[in-house]
Amino acid sequence: MTGRVWLVGAGPGDPGLITVRGLELLRACDAVVYDRLVAPEVVGEAPVDAIRIGREPLEQEEINQVLVRLARRGLDVVRLKGGDPFLFGRGGEEALALVDAGVTFEVVPGVSSLAAVPAAAGIPVMHRGVASQLTIVNGHGPLDFASLAAAPGTLVVFMGLGRLEELAAGLVEHGRAASTPAAVIASGTLPDQRIVVAPLGRIAEAAEDLDPPALVVIGDVVGLAALLTPTAAVAAA
Amino acid sequence: MTGRVWLVGAGPGDPGLITVRGLELLRACDAVVYDRLVAPEVVGEAPVDAIRIGREPLEQEEINQVLVRLARRGLDVVRLKGGDPFLFGRGGEEALALVDAGVTFEVVPGVSSLAAVPAAAGIPVMHRGVASQLTIVNGHGPLDFASLAAAPGTLVVFMGLGRLEELAAGLVEHGRAASTPAAVIASGTLPDQRIVVAPLGRIAEAAEDLDPPALVVIGDVVGLAALLTPTAAVAAA
Repeated sequence: MTGRVWLVGAGPGDPGLITVRGLELLRACDAVVYDRLVAPEVVGEAPVDAIRIGREPLEQEEINQVLVRLARRGLDVVRLKGGDPFLFGRGGEEALALVDAGVTFEVVPGVSSLAAVPAAAGIPVMHRGVASQLTIVNGHGPLDFASLAAAPGTLVVFMGLGRLEELAAGLVEHGRAASTPAAVIASGTLPDQRIVVAPLGRIAEAAEDLDPPALVVIGDVVGLAALLTPTAAVAAA
Repeated sequence: MTGRVWLVGAGPGDPGLITVRGLELLRACDAVVYDRLVAPEVVGEAPVDAIRIGREPLEQEEINQVLVRLARRGLDVVRLKGGDPFLFGRGGEEALALVDAGVTFEVVPGVSSLAAVPAAAGIPVMHRGVASQLTIVNGHGPLDFASLAAAPGTLVVFMGLGRLEELAAGLVEHGRAASTPAAVIASGTLPDQRIVVAPLGRIAEAAEDLDPPALVVIGDVVGLAALLTPTAAVAAA
């Protein structure tokens, strides 16, 4: 009999932020295939005799095939992803591969870094009277600066640290004020979390010592960080 | 000694989607203040002798004061919110009130409906080659149709069911194709979940029998629902 596959969001980093259902499935699985950014404590919740496969060295197509092969061996598989499977998790690609192969699957959503990482830095991504609209973009993908600069509210960029100078310059060139508050949060929700806050025009310079994984947050909500986290390392504005 | 307050996201509806940490805090609290949409099974996880306060009849300012008063009585309080505290959860307002009152608080993020509810309908809100940008807006707030229509990728509208006709017409008027795939998901992740899929130009009519809470999803990713959930109630296109 063919096994099943659960695409499980492990949350933003902190091991306590996996869901109750995700943890239950993980503790009962025959095999776990996990992303690099999933906490070792979480992967360690799989049964001692479960097959453990790190995603890191594999291409996406190989991962898809590994999931299909494990299920066809009759194993119940948890595919453990950082954040949420469908927010930058490429869960859709894996789901389509499973459908094509006739393997039963289910998506178990997770806490995305989207709001959790800014929250850990004292930033509410939405706040009444400050931001009622939120734009999320992939820093590795195509960037439509005109529409990004025109969007009201908060802008959150995943995987944007490597292009931060280009990103900030593009937004300012297309009309966002260089004084717009901005933040970069590296290793958000983890013990080695680091936060840098600076105006958009100077955020690239201020954040140059940070390493990925990092989330970029741009908008007036960043200004609330000073009120909500006394411990944020706020760069001189 | 003053108690503490945890602003805890309970997730999108399914009781299994609260985080492990959120559930631990809930099981140890002295008082729980909960939103209407939080599942009764979740509220039921608080200790039998905990104070239980439903948020429903209270104004936001009253809730803020209740949290402060409970903490000042020395109680540890869990403020249990639907979804995530900072994505439409008004957690920022409560956090500011707690800071003003000198009450120690912490935010425990939750699974937002944002990706979880579309996922339960077979829709990945982001998908490589289809959508690498995502815009989220409050259907009760001001709508900037020009920027919403111009944003590439997926648009997700919270609390948009009551204004769906105006929303769809505004987007089409500002340049979004009337043929853009759209979906409305009511009671997402719950046993009585209902899904309607139709082109943007006809989504308001197709969804007229649905009741809140509902999430509106607009964009080509909706077209993946037919592949990823054979059980979706797809309206004739």
